[in-house]
Amino acid sequence: MFLPIFFFILSILIPHSSASNDFCIADLSLPIGPAGYPCKDPKSVTVDDFISSSLTVPSGNTTNLYNASFKDIDTEQFPGLNGMGISMLRADLDMGGLTPLHTHRVSELLLGIEGSVLVGFIDSNNTAYYKTINKGEVIIIPPTLLHFFYNVESTRAVTYSFYPSDDHGLQGVDSSLFRGNLPSEMIDKITLLGHAQIQQLKKLLGGTN
Amino acid sequence: MFLPIFFFILSILIPHSSASNDFCIADLSLPIGPAGYPCKDPKSVTVDDFISSSLTVPSGNTTNLYNASFKDIDTEQFPGLNGMGISMLRADLDMGGLTPLHTHRVSELLLGIEGSVLVGFIDSNNTAYYKTINKGEVIIIPPTLLHFFYNVESTRAVTYSFYPSDDHGLQGVDSSLFRGNLPSEMIDKITLLGHAQIQQLKKLLGGTN
Amino acid sequence: MFLPIFFFILSILIPHSSASNDFCIADLSLPIGPAGYPCKDPKSVTVDDFISSSLTVPSGNTTNLYNASFKDIDTEQFPGLNGMGISMLRADLDMGGLTPLHTHRVSELLLGIEGSVLVGFIDSNNTAYYKTINKGEVIIIPPTLLHFFYNVESTRAVTYSFYPSDDHGLQGVDSSLFRGNLPSEMIDKITLLGHAQIQQLKKLLGGTN
Amino acid sequence: MFLPIFFFILSILIPHSSASNDFCIADLSLPIGPAGYPCKDPKSVTVDDFISSSLTVPSGNTTNLYNASFKDIDTEQFPGLNGMGISMLRADLDMGGLTPLHTHRVSELLLGIEGSVLVGFIDSNNTAYYKTINKGEVIIIPPTLLHFFYNVESTRAVTYSFYPSDDHGLQGVDSSLFRGNLPSEMIDKITLLGHAQIQQLKKLLGGTN
Amino acid sequence: MFLPIFFFILSILIPHSSASNDFCIADLSLPIGPAGYPCKDPKSVTVDDFISSSLTVPSGNTTNLYNASFKDIDTEQFPGLNGMGISMLRADLDMGGLTPLHTHRVSELLLGIEGSVLVGFIDSNNTAYYKTINKGEVIIIPPTLLHFFYNVESTRAVTYSFYPSDDHGLQGVDSSLFRGNLPSEMIDKITLLGHAQIQQLKKLLGGTN
Amino acid sequence: MFLPIFFFILSILIPHSSASNDFCIADLSLPIGPAGYPCKDPKSVTVDDFISSSLTVPSGNTTNLYNASFKDIDTEQFPGLNGMGISMLRADLDMGGLTPLHTHRVSELLLGIEGSVLVGFIDSNNTAYYKTINKGEVIIIPPTLLHFFYNVESTRAVTYSFYPSDDHGLQGVDSSLFRGNLPSEMIDKITLLGHAQIQQLKKLLGGTN
Repeated sequence: MFLPIFFFILSILIPHSSASNDFCIADLSLPIGPAGYPCKDPKSVTVDDFISSSLTVPSGNTTNLYNASFKDIDTEQFPGLNGMGISMLRADLDMGGLTPLHTHRVSELLLGIEGSVLVGFIDSNNTAYYKTINKGEVIIIPPTLLHFFYNVESTRAVTYSFYPSDDHGLQGVDSSLFRGNLPSEMIDKITLLGHAQIQQLKKLLGGTN
Repeated sequence: MFLPIFFFILSILIPHSSASNDFCIADLSLPIGPAGYPCKDPKSVTVDDFISSSLTVPSGNTTNLYNASFKDIDTEQFPGLNGMGISMLRADLDMGGLTPLHTHRVSELLLGIEGSVLVGFIDSNNTAYYKTINKGEVIIIPPTLLHFFYNVESTRAVTYSFYPSDDHGLQGVDSSLFRGNLPSEMIDKITLLGHAQIQQLKKLLGGTN
Repeated sequence: MFLPIFFFILSILIPHSSASNDFCIADLSLPIGPAGYPCKDPKSVTVDDFISSSLTVPSGNTTNLYNASFKDIDTEQFPGLNGMGISMLRADLDMGGLTPLHTHRVSELLLGIEGSVLVGFIDSNNTAYYKTINKGEVIIIPPTLLHFFYNVESTRAVTYSFYPSDDHGLQGVDSSLFRGNLPSEMIDKITLLGHAQIQQLKKLLGGTN
Repeated sequence: MFLPIFFFILSILIPHSSASNDFCIADLSLPIGPAGYPCKDPKSVTVDDFISSSLTVPSGNTTNLYNASFKDIDTEQFPGLNGMGISMLRADLDMGGLTPLHTHRVSELLLGIEGSVLVGFIDSNNTAYYKTINKGEVIIIPPTLLHFFYNVESTRAVTYSFYPSDDHGLQGVDSSLFRGNLPSEMIDKITLLGHAQIQQLKKLLGGTN
Repeated sequence: MFLPIFFFILSILIPHSSASNDFCIADLSLPIGPAGYPCKDPKSVTVDDFISSSLTVPSGNTTNLYNASFKDIDTEQFPGLNGMGISMLRADLDMGGLTPLHTHRVSELLLGIEGSVLVGFIDSNNTAYYKTINKGEVIIIPPTLLHFFYNVESTRAVTYSFYPSDDHGLQGVDSSLFRGNLPSEMIDKITLLGHAQIQQLKKLLGGTN
Repeated sequence: MFLPIFFFILSILIPHSSASNDFCIADLSLPIGPAGYPCKDPKSVTVDDFISSSLTVPSGNTTNLYNASFKDIDTEQFPGLNGMGISMLRADLDMGGLTPLHTHRVSELLLGIEGSVLVGFIDSNNTAYYKTINKGEVIIIPPTLLHFFYNVESTRAVTYSFYPSDDHGLQGVDSSLFRGNLPSEMIDKITLLGHAQIQQLKKLLGGTN
């Protein structure tokens, strides 16, 4: 290939794109909108804005009711995810540990990292699908369906989940009912559980009203 | 304006669009895909394909556990909704009637049609928001959050709900747990409800396992 | 179910989500963007942010040219709709009342609330579809097609419309032509209506130029 | 770089993707769905499936009412556009030629190719925006707003338009009203034009009823 | 049509939309977010905000390595494109001029404006599709596939490209490798090109490290 | 709660959803469309349709040019992903192993599973971002940007990648240029590599022409 010497110091070469919108690291100090956070100035972005070590450590203390902990990794925890359409979660389940019945706003791809978990989901015709997921296996849980998983071995289990949204919107059924401010008489009405049961679970989970 | 007579019989006039894709009435005889059903031949489409009378009549028999009935109106029930990005539901609630805790895949705009209903939803921080919705009032329920509504008057209540999706994907919590095939020991684990409670609700709602 | 007493006062329980993005009530004081308004601080959100009573009252004075009034309910009127993908409109039509030819940016699900209206739309092959919609019936109008509706009874008619977008973008044909600043000679050219007609309608509707 | 000889005949090399879904040339013989046509077998695809010469020739005969012609280029005319999110149109305007008031389902980027056209659009507050677009200039017309363009020179004008959708859904106002089957009394009601005017335009444009 | 005189001065006429969100001219002084820039106050918008003359002039100096220049026209260069879902590019290719191998985030519709260019793209099965595109012809390049085009005549060539996104995200392969800060040893590893070749191209294109 | 016995055998209970569209397992025997494959009959779906063990085993033989292998897991390999908006890839990198420069149609979340890899990507301003990703760390690679990763330790490395799309559309730069049918003279022109280099790489990688 012939490359004449006078091109060696060349100031205007194509292609040159002036666009700086390849990414949009969240500026968490500004108000969020329906599509996410405004972007941090690209000039101050470094490679570390794109990396998270959140999954490398246990997601929290598992000395609790569920013998389990999890860490939700959305744009707020990892600003590099802003506008990228993906987010994640790590769950740690001790022996007997479980992630109780819950939903997300989008589908979930759950990956077994350590141990074995029984994963189940229920469709809108009330059919349950469940199976043990071992290390390295994945299960796809369709969008918004109620699902759960729990440790089926005597050793610790770890799972990572991936969601096609910056903000997957986790909501737990028991937490919603028994950890918040929903009045007991409403809970009774909408779940048919009865007051005694509701009071017991509110006491256990910390709900008021 | 001068309009010469020789234009009166004019065969090639603009604008003429050859596109026939203004709408896509579902051909329910063909397999559905992720974006909906293939379209019925536009030549056989009439105005009736765009109209539904489903909301004009009570959504069903309310002599049941919930003193309530509802009718889900998605593409399968109203093929004109295919690809239109909207669907609906009618609920009829007798005295004491209720729509128990449930979710949808998208947001819901619930409209009071008759009577008054108490509508509530819970966010992912376990905060409940609830209020009575009277005739003509609307409440917007954010996407996929757990919610419910029930009749708070001694007269019948009717609500219509509208969803920004052809298929809003209703899922009831009690139905999922107690009307399907999810084994009782799993339910116990993921809800903390206890076997006695679960057996009682399975008997009531018709679940197996 | 065995629930040991030392769990009763439990500070770190799962699931706990730090996400606060279940909803995004519009902060109308900040500039809007292509996806909507920035969100109001969730801490100041109450249930009333999710409720609108706009449809409960007539949409306006019907002593006018069209014997009709309507109220458009988008994010600006009901900030709870921001990012929710749905909006609405109420129309009140006195005897002879009508909503003249217009378009929206998205599909419309029109619901008969009171009386009977003749609803029609025209597709891009110039085929008109029209039929009387009675109380409780719905008609789906495909995205952006020209449509209209008018009262066909001697009694008042009321309709509610629902749109799968936060901002449905209503545009009236006569209003666009005869209520604004489009010069008459342009109108003549693009509609073939002739100056006399245009002047008459501009006088009637309030257009300038 | 050292490249040992035993790699020269290498059967399993990375990266190898088995995916064949880079494109989806429409198979027009199969029924369309809400997202477009099923794809033609990729094995029978050639470079010609991606190319259209439709814009190289005048879009049609301009000896007509509008002294104009246009050609709509959607997936049906150019199957390579299926699923690509873009489509186009060529308009040819003789002296005095015009594209009358119309809408599309999406935004339009109109490009002057030859001559000069006056392009105008009207927003939903009835404000008209209009200006002459010369060769090589572009105007962006926001989604679904009523717009038009006409030749303002004594020489032929040509424009190309580009739309961010496989199927932009053109609808002309006069065509919809006066070339189709919408009954005259309905047109009168919804446009305030009066019977004489409507009859004259129906005769001119070919409408029935 | 009877139009009584007392309607001539009419203050409340329908339809009246309070929405001002037909368009969203970018306010480039505010921080961008994942969906684009916040909107400029609609009151200060004029027709010139919707028009660009960028394509009317050569895209730049072609006395360079590629005998070519191009101009990327995204929201930053043409704020009227904000939220409109479309953007563009002009390329000028002198004799022997070329746009080297590159990608975009979305599909591209390339239009021959002057001269003839050989356009090629490669799919993910490593099959190349290439053909000469003459004036007025278009080629659709599927999303994100590697592609290129170069002048095959002895006269200047000009092309315009259109993309279904506000920001099409151009990235050149040689520029990415040899004009930036990617260390030579990494380039060697990920391209198999060898140090001599890499140094030569870095010198030619201006890369560091 | 009082639950009268005559409800125990109850045939019409709410909520009952007739919708069967919670998921859409691909029927690979039918033609794909722009939104994916038509759905398999839900009646024949079992839990195994939602599970993949593809990531549990090495992605292939690494005795090759790159000392690496990878397995792309899209809808074709795992039909349960159809319409779910997420897909994945496993890469195995022996000592010195690498995944050469490539792109995807969407963003990528790369997770270190075993060993350490140096991951880099280049933005459209030719700025490279690169860093070592260890076990359990993740890096988000913005949509469509050129990127690569390689083993930086003397032990095997394994990574899993997750993409917010059913079909992420991998394309390798060297493969595209040197393993397919793109003629050498075109490659020379669009990359400035020179014939000797191109011939060497074509021989190495298996390209023709």
